[in-house]
Amino acid sequence: MKVSRRSQVPPFAVMEVLAAANVRRSAGHDVLNLCAGEPSAGASDVVRDRAADLLRQGDLGYTESLGVPALREEIAGHYRRWYGVDVDPGRVAVTTGSSGGFVLTFLAAFDVGDRVALARPGYPAYKNILAALGCEVVEIDCGPETRYQPTVAQLEQLVADGPLAGLIVASPANPTGTMIAPAELDAVARWCADHGVRLISDEIYHGIAYGDDLGQATAAVHGDGGAVVVNSFSKYWAMTGWRLGWLVLPEELVGPVGALAGNVALSPPALAQHAAIAAFSPAGYQAAADNVVRYRASRAALLDRLDELGWRPVAPADGAFYLYGNVSRLGLDAVTYCSRLLAEADVAITPGTDFDGRTGGDWVRLSFAADPVTVARAVDRIVAWQDGLSRA
Amino acid sequence: MKVSRRSQVPPFAVMEVLAAANVRRSAGHDVLNLCAGEPSAGASDVVRDRAADLLRQGDLGYTESLGVPALREEIAGHYRRWYGVDVDPGRVAVTTGSSGGFVLTFLAAFDVGDRVALARPGYPAYKNILAALGCEVVEIDCGPETRYQPTVAQLEQLVADGPLAGLIVASPANPTGTMIAPAELDAVARWCADHGVRLISDEIYHGIAYGDDLGQATAAVHGDGGAVVVNSFSKYWAMTGWRLGWLVLPEELVGPVGALAGNVALSPPALAQHAAIAAFSPAGYQAAADNVVRYRASRAALLDRLDELGWRPVAPADGAFYLYGNVSRLGLDAVTYCSRLLAEADVAITPGTDFDGRTGGDWVRLSFAADPVTVARAVDRIVAWQDGLSRA
Repeated sequence: MKVSRRSQVPPFAVMEVLAAANVRRSAGHDVLNLCAGEPSAGASDVVRDRAADLLRQGDLGYTESLGVPALREEIAGHYRRWYGVDVDPGRVAVTTGSSGGFVLTFLAAFDVGDRVALARPGYPAYKNILAALGCEVVEIDCGPETRYQPTVAQLEQLVADGPLAGLIVASPANPTGTMIAPAELDAVARWCADHGVRLISDEIYHGIAYGDDLGQATAAVHGDGGAVVVNSFSKYWAMTGWRLGWLVLPEELVGPVGALAGNVALSPPALAQHAAIAAFSPAGYQAAADNVVRYRASRAALLDRLDELGWRPVAPADGAFYLYGNVSRLGLDAVTYCSRLLAEADVAITPGTDFDGRTGGDWVRLSFAADPVTVARAVDRIVAWQDGLSRA
Repeated sequence: MKVSRRSQVPPFAVMEVLAAANVRRSAGHDVLNLCAGEPSAGASDVVRDRAADLLRQGDLGYTESLGVPALREEIAGHYRRWYGVDVDPGRVAVTTGSSGGFVLTFLAAFDVGDRVALARPGYPAYKNILAALGCEVVEIDCGPETRYQPTVAQLEQLVADGPLAGLIVASPANPTGTMIAPAELDAVARWCADHGVRLISDEIYHGIAYGDDLGQATAAVHGDGGAVVVNSFSKYWAMTGWRLGWLVLPEELVGPVGALAGNVALSPPALAQHAAIAAFSPAGYQAAADNVVRYRASRAALLDRLDELGWRPVAPADGAFYLYGNVSRLGLDAVTYCSRLLAEADVAITPGTDFDGRTGGDWVRLSFAADPVTVARAVDRIVAWQDGLSRA
């Protein structure tokens, strides 16, 4: 029986690494997993307590397709608190993770055949979802000279080749962790608005940033220009398996996203929605901020040992919890590097091929979302293993 | 800024009714809601207890994209227990509700432009999701002569008009509650396998059936012929807001669905997955069976009063928890009938226009998933209100 062409999604190398890591762990090996972009802390106590209350006495039925009103209000309040920006709760759509938010946004904004641009290296699900929905993906090669982020100059070149329906930006980005300066995001958003290009700003790593020089700007201020913000409870609030995210939509997409959501999802998970309201309490914010303190410590320890690691160059890890480094001087392609590192030193990290089909074979991504002790032990093992490689 | 053509989903009349019902309820009216296809009981205690344990001590991170292995095993076991059928757990994909299952199945099985057939009347999200994904929907008019279900004879006619990529069947069906006899499902499945047509069998109302004459057959036995089964924890196990469902896939779709799921969803909700394992315990099955006893009582009370209601014809309510009846003799189109019934008698039911764009204006759907007392009170009010209409 026929299988669709659009389901021929390129496999993720990280899944192979994860599967191999699980096999080794089951066989009794002490595997250190720095593969997944997943905070080890999990949801805060205040969120778990709220969920436990709801389990005892709550209504866990379908909710409104765009999310329960109380949570939409809290999310709007978050924009006032963090960014000093007024967001109408009516523009907030609660989604089943940012994944659900991307699917809804792409369906609402783009038709089959539309061209949508994004940065290379970048999060692979963007292009895989777009391709499955019949859109044409245009990758923009981004390097250290622009902090691995697309620029207006590159966009000008792109539209010379044909009309562009959309642009995805991510700051802090995955896999690089780099951020867009507020003035640059502003320029990109204005250019998009002027050229009828739908800007989709992935802000799921907001709140996880380490510099003082780069402020954190949200595209939510550019709703009048058509910009869509995608966010999530998975990263800052460490609620990955709860599958909850949100969109801040421009007015013209609220109706279409609501209608689509009612069909493709019915509603986001009810328990997660009600519990997530507690994420915006002082205790919820504090728990999340405490996690960032740990990521900061891990990051500092990693950067202190860059010379020992010898990964050169590394992308500037402005935010998120990733170190993206070039390992080509070690003489192994990234897939081989990662599979041997796992087999010989029990450390799991991700080859760059998942994020960059062109030069990703020279790069690896290390996630420091695990606890600092695990990260430090992993670096010890990587350095020792690499020393063995050089001597061999 | 451009909004996609594919997001122009027809609005659901039921959403208007629900919104109006909420307004009246907020204003202090005692509204009886028989609109939603949602069991009032909610998840069983054994499932809630399991979830509470997990909240205290569990890992609620991302799971495998196709679901946690223990739940996939339990689902396979359910096929042995209920149907006497051996299903390889590797063919089971846990999904974010049946909604998530439909999106993944359609993406994996159909390309843009593919023709997919389904029954009219039917669940509107099928055609809305298919259209959003670029497929061409072919509606098969189904009436009382075939229990509102498509037949092989109709399929033969359809393929004379052009190639068909897929067929969706639902038994028990929404909105009619009618079921396909096992021999007929078998014939349809064999015809589909012989003609290269992907059969998708919506079995989310399995377990909620009232007749002794109609057995309950699963298309899971037709995996070798390419059939996909869609199921859910929402209806029989009353876990709507938990957003959890599953697929039983033919071998050739396991890889594509897994790859797509990793991109469009990452994983189904973790807490719901772990808790749902308890749904297959003796206490979990018992709680679900107790709910069906209540639906059976409500259904019997409704059918006893059909003459008073005067809805003629009604579809044979073999299963699910819906009564689909023709109200044209009352002289109001269904949308007007439902909005006046709400405004004048505080009973919310759904106009047939949501399920049938051709003759749905003559029909209404009443859900008896609420508690029996509520259903009985609603019938009292409907009968009294209709009497007032006739006298007016």
